[in-house]
Amino acid sequence: MTDRLPPTPFLAVDLPVLQSTIDAVASWSDDRGVALRPHVKTHKSEEIARMQADAGAVGITVATIGEAEVFAQGGFDDLFIAFPLWVDAARAKRLTRLCRDAAVQVGFDSLAGARNLVGLGVRGVVEVDSGHHRSGVAPEDAGLLAALASDAGLDVAGVFTFPGHSYSPTGRLAAAADEGRALAAAAASMRTAGVAPGVVSGGSTPSLAALADGITEARPGVYVFNDAQQWELGVCTAERIALTCHASVVSHAGGRLVVDSGSKALGADRAGWASGFGRLLDHPEARIVILSEHHAVVDMASESLPPLGSTVRVVPNHVCNAVNLAEEYAVFSGGRLVDRWAVSARGMNA
Amino acid sequence: MTDRLPPTPFLAVDLPVLQSTIDAVASWSDDRGVALRPHVKTHKSEEIARMQADAGAVGITVATIGEAEVFAQGGFDDLFIAFPLWVDAARAKRLTRLCRDAAVQVGFDSLAGARNLVGLGVRGVVEVDSGHHRSGVAPEDAGLLAALASDAGLDVAGVFTFPGHSYSPTGRLAAAADEGRALAAAAASMRTAGVAPGVVSGGSTPSLAALADGITEARPGVYVFNDAQQWELGVCTAERIALTCHASVVSHAGGRLVVDSGSKALGADRAGWASGFGRLLDHPEARIVILSEHHAVVDMASESLPPLGSTVRVVPNHVCNAVNLAEEYAVFSGGRLVDRWAVSARGMNA
Repeated sequence: MTDRLPPTPFLAVDLPVLQSTIDAVASWSDDRGVALRPHVKTHKSEEIARMQADAGAVGITVATIGEAEVFAQGGFDDLFIAFPLWVDAARAKRLTRLCRDAAVQVGFDSLAGARNLVGLGVRGVVEVDSGHHRSGVAPEDAGLLAALASDAGLDVAGVFTFPGHSYSPTGRLAAAADEGRALAAAAASMRTAGVAPGVVSGGSTPSLAALADGITEARPGVYVFNDAQQWELGVCTAERIALTCHASVVSHAGGRLVVDSGSKALGADRAGWASGFGRLLDHPEARIVILSEHHAVVDMASESLPPLGSTVRVVPNHVCNAVNLAEEYAVFSGGRLVDRWAVSARGMNA
Repeated sequence: MTDRLPPTPFLAVDLPVLQSTIDAVASWSDDRGVALRPHVKTHKSEEIARMQADAGAVGITVATIGEAEVFAQGGFDDLFIAFPLWVDAARAKRLTRLCRDAAVQVGFDSLAGARNLVGLGVRGVVEVDSGHHRSGVAPEDAGLLAALASDAGLDVAGVFTFPGHSYSPTGRLAAAADEGRALAAAAASMRTAGVAPGVVSGGSTPSLAALADGITEARPGVYVFNDAQQWELGVCTAERIALTCHASVVSHAGGRLVVDSGSKALGADRAGWASGFGRLLDHPEARIVILSEHHAVVDMASESLPPLGSTVRVVPNHVCNAVNLAEEYAVFSGGRLVDRWAVSARGMNA
């Protein structure tokens, strides 16, 4: 712990905002009777996962075996790898090892994928496509796949989906409704096929508030920090943004602001509907209009340019990818640096 | 060195392709009488920088002090930080230390920025805007800025630009012409102001082949590997792509291919003119149509789907950002894993 600030660009967490968001979503889940299993790919931090667990999370969601290994090492013992892993011999060995110390669930969306999971100690969760059209089977096929996987010897824990089409300025509520319908249809088809659906798991940050009845578990990730995407989608206000990238003003070339947080600090995400490559927390009208690896060029709209050498707080478009570029967080409370936390699972893609 | 492949997704370098490209660009520079100072932000690897030096590079270009420190530690002693650094007390100390073991040049585009460089042992290089409109002064203002910086006590080494608007399917030659005109005008204005332009430095990979006369130094980065952007711009053919991300087929959901190299392995770069989020080296018609953090959904056009569990070679859109996500390269020659190299300067943004 030190009061000496790291050089820009660096990621800064606003601890009181983070804590109050974690608490608010935990009590919302509790009131709704929904189990909260946050996706830790967003923060990749043991400290933050512990805050989520302390607030009542039933376990965590991860995307890869590598992330699962980091968090298992940190003492987390209820892990869902929400991805249709292809498990070869090396991955089978790693999963078997993971199961010694933790309850592990793994997604699948094919019988071949399910067969690879048999005998490792993991439980399988059928993935269904609720409209994002990425991975997952059609909801009405969930029962057949679950029954075949079960016959092949896999312990099937339930069904899950990711309604990623909720990342849309006009489609959030519709995506939540799609999610509810898809999971209900999948659960019904499993019951018909003689497999108890058990866990019925959904949830993305934009659709969370409209989570349908019948969903037993929610796996939001981004909600802990929020980001420029959530701000633009209307999911959060600027006051609920807990992570920014502190950047230095290095140039006023062409009458615009140039700061030192490029795509190697923020990530290059830009959805079709995004108004820029990122925003400034303290200047809501400003937009990053050019983003290269080490330069962000900001149009300040009608505002005057912050001086050369001053620091601005940049809000990344997609916080998960910004976090995955950094080794650590500088943790602030009341404007004071109070801690540094490692991004322990950074780069754990495999 | 091991024959055991890392788990997917991982970055693979084709060593013979890499070596022949490094050699070809080095001899082209030699024939043209242009000093080659490759930008190592692309590969962040001491091994590759050494190959470039062995082929005749006069020094290296970096983007940050952190990158400079890594390469200085590796024995590189002629470094150009081609960025308008804002040098505070902490950065001044680091630059002074760097200058003990290396000749260091630093970009500037304001008098305030130049003043911060005085007395540290570095030489300054004026940045001009040649049409990319990112950082840099107007070419005709280079002389005044150089003279004022010089009066303030800075040793001014020359002038540089980055013609980033060469990243355009129709604008490459025009950008190279802009670059030539801007650097010529800047050099003339410096002479008029009584400051010898010395180094006249330009170069981007798309504009390199059309480098204008009068430019004394070129700083291409991406050329060592190429990527889907260069492929789509017509700068290279598929045979000249030296880096791919090996990815596993994990799903055939919806009749499309889903592989495990998402934006956390490839980067999320997608220029307005790009045909997708990345391509497959062995399937030129295929396009990544959806990219999320751990999934790439590929439209295979008329081709049949590679089987579940098989490996495909993905070409990232922007190789610099893909490299910055990885800890190491798996180095292949003739299809065999022959080495592993560290991405030593990964994440050195500050």
